[in-house]
Amino acid sequence: MNRVTIEKNVLSENDRIAQRLRDALTGTGTLALNFIGSPGAGKTAFLEKTLERLPAHTRAAVVTGDLQTQNDAIRLQRYGFPVRQITTVGACHLDARMVENHITDWLEEGIEILFIENVGNLVCPTSYDLGEDAKIVILSCAEGEDKPLKYPGIFRKSELMILNKTDLLPYVPFQSEAALTNARSVNPNIEIIQTSCITGAGFDQWMSWLDRRAARKKASARPLAGANVSS
Amino acid sequence: MNRVTIEKNVLSENDRIAQRLRDALTGTGTLALNFIGSPGAGKTAFLEKTLERLPAHTRAAVVTGDLQTQNDAIRLQRYGFPVRQITTVGACHLDARMVENHITDWLEEGIEILFIENVGNLVCPTSYDLGEDAKIVILSCAEGEDKPLKYPGIFRKSELMILNKTDLLPYVPFQSEAALTNARSVNPNIEIIQTSCITGAGFDQWMSWLDRRAARKKASARPLAGANVSS
Repeated sequence: MNRVTIEKNVLSENDRIAQRLRDALTGTGTLALNFIGSPGAGKTAFLEKTLERLPAHTRAAVVTGDLQTQNDAIRLQRYGFPVRQITTVGACHLDARMVENHITDWLEEGIEILFIENVGNLVCPTSYDLGEDAKIVILSCAEGEDKPLKYPGIFRKSELMILNKTDLLPYVPFQSEAALTNARSVNPNIEIIQTSCITGAGFDQWMSWLDRRAARKKASARPLAGANVSS
Repeated sequence: MNRVTIEKNVLSENDRIAQRLRDALTGTGTLALNFIGSPGAGKTAFLEKTLERLPAHTRAAVVTGDLQTQNDAIRLQRYGFPVRQITTVGACHLDARMVENHITDWLEEGIEILFIENVGNLVCPTSYDLGEDAKIVILSCAEGEDKPLKYPGIFRKSELMILNKTDLLPYVPFQSEAALTNARSVNPNIEIIQTSCITGAGFDQWMSWLDRRAARKKASARPLAGANVSS
């Protein structure tokens, strides 16, 4: 068996577990979002700001992946929602089994939103389905406007791009318009929200996106059997 | 054969080619440097600034890796040195064979310095020996001071860390001292140079590091057979 065959087997085994996870998430009406971005794109700060703004009654939870350290979980635990660190010990991505192993009890208790912060890497996490409803790519203005062209896979698979750290725009040679054009050239359907975790810019738009998607997922969990009755 | 065995075979085949490449580079006295960093850490801008400052008579050359696009090669070609793009078409790292395939004629012509810009990724390139004299990790001040702890592999294997984009320090919540402490905690021997490609800060120090290392490599190419004669 050669390497390509092995890779295919690993991915198809992952897909199988991801499907099981997706079914479970559909059953509970849990919106699962898979955040992917470079190291330093601001994934953790973005989630911190999100948790800070989330109504306290929301049943949300976070799993956060890193090769080493519990740093991100410690940062995220300050907001009163359950958070678990997944330490991949060298692996460059999360896979469906790692996520499943960490959230089974949460699903039994019933959660509305599951935030998954992937390992900082624009390449490898792209291939691993985690049973999520949407992949969200986070790109920082400190990176470069050609990233969607250089790493097209993740921009193609993402439903939403967060263009983050817009507060740095006056200080970096980053051309926002070119970044948006590049993202849309690889994925014409991608939605884009521009945010800053320092100034809070864009978070109204993001929180309403999140709210809308969570409501839609919740509604789809319980088929509207009553709809036919009233018609 | 399971996945771990396959991975081991791939890496040992890579090591074999890397050793052949290292022998060739030693024969020609070529200093080979493998630059690794996140997408957007500033690897290409750093190499541009380096080529701009390099004396025109230097026999230097660059290979630059990306999943897609020729963008980086186009940027780097403006400085009068030979540059080749390695497009990995999805692979998250360069391997020794890709590099060997792109530089054989350069080695025959004789080059003093080979710059290798790896794919933007702090994880996977760490495992692939490219026959280089040193790995150099580039970390941007826009990323985060905990990166050496979260991605210890590359900081452990690097001889030099470039802490780049120091011009952004007034605008980002980045603690330089903590970053240096974290880097040294995973690799007490790591050298550190702080640079900005905008202001040029740190480039005197970097160019003299480069000069010193190139001279040392060149000297080791021709064993000093005369040394014993004069003693």
